[in-house]
Amino acid sequence: MVATTDKPKTLALEDFLALPETKPASEYADGAITQKPMPKGKHSRIQSRLAREIDQITESKKFALALTELRCTMAGRSIVPDIAVVRWENLPRDEDGEIGDRFDRHPDWVIEILSPEQSVTLVMEKIIFCLQQGTELGWLIDPQAKSVTTFQDGLPTIHLVEQEDTRAIAIMTGLEEWQLSVQDIFDWLKV
Amino acid sequence: MVATTDKPKTLALEDFLALPETKPASEYADGAITQKPMPKGKHSRIQSRLAREIDQITESKKFALALTELRCTMAGRSIVPDIAVVRWENLPRDEDGEIGDRFDRHPDWVIEILSPEQSVTLVMEKIIFCLQQGTELGWLIDPQAKSVTTFQDGLPTIHLVEQEDTRAIAIMTGLEEWQLSVQDIFDWLKV
Repeated sequence: MVATTDKPKTLALEDFLALPETKPASEYADGAITQKPMPKGKHSRIQSRLAREIDQITESKKFALALTELRCTMAGRSIVPDIAVVRWENLPRDEDGEIGDRFDRHPDWVIEILSPEQSVTLVMEKIIFCLQQGTELGWLIDPQAKSVTTFQDGLPTIHLVEQEDTRAIAIMTGLEEWQLSVQDIFDWLKV
Repeated sequence: MVATTDKPKTLALEDFLALPETKPASEYADGAITQKPMPKGKHSRIQSRLAREIDQITESKKFALALTELRCTMAGRSIVPDIAVVRWENLPRDEDGEIGDRFDRHPDWVIEILSPEQSVTLVMEKIIFCLQQGTELGWLIDPQAKSVTTFQDGLPTIHLVEQEDTRAIAIMTGLEEWQLSVQDIFDWLKV
């Protein structure tokens, strides 16, 4: 008998999606599963407060929703951004007009908040992947560097508390009246 | 007496440049000094080998030099990239036609290799600062993520060993015949 040279079997996307959800959520790319890190204090506070700030403005106008831990499946990959902001017209809906459970689309604005043990490079790769699928805006919040990096068309823009950057951080088109600086975000950590 | 409200004095760039060099090198931005981390095995190997590979091609053509730990001072900041590639015509020269000691310019191609304790965000900020000063190309090599991220005009491009990315990494204009993949770079670690 000739030894087979097949590569080890990798999991198909649909098989991954059929698995029970984990906590923290698991993500899928290229046949491999990776589990997100367990969120800690700073991560959790920024995630909750930022989602609230955005949702507060966008829901009443029926402009968008800010959804935490929404599974977004697209282009053969399944990710769970810390915050996915989805424009009203792009929300998944079931037959009753309620928000649907499965979201097979890129978020319109993707926000990731780093955990201490997470790789900035790998999280940035995920954000850039979203932009390549059509996401308008990406934010990468790094509590260790006290920074917010925004991704749009061109080079990323980095806002650092250390540089006393008071510029308004780039926001999703249509929400420009809402202005937030990197200082505002990290002030939320003072409790 | 009225208490003064002066902020604590910060160091001027020229005063910083007059200080003796440290090992590892120190960098200067916004009145503050930060010392680079002590390079470790993987960092050192990639830095040496990559500088050699580039220099080997560029020196004989009088096209550029790949210089490790060259102090580059510009726009009120003084940085020491892991590798600074400088086009032949931009090399600093003293009266004897020898390479000068002080380089008050951006490198044409800036390469940074992350150390385990370094912040990806802060290193990326340094690369983007260079691009804003006129640097054509930035590379950020992350030995932990096994990745090379390139910075030019648009969104960064991330090459990951894990994704079996065999694409040629973006290179300085004029050196395109030289092709290198992320796998090639991390194969250098196998000794």
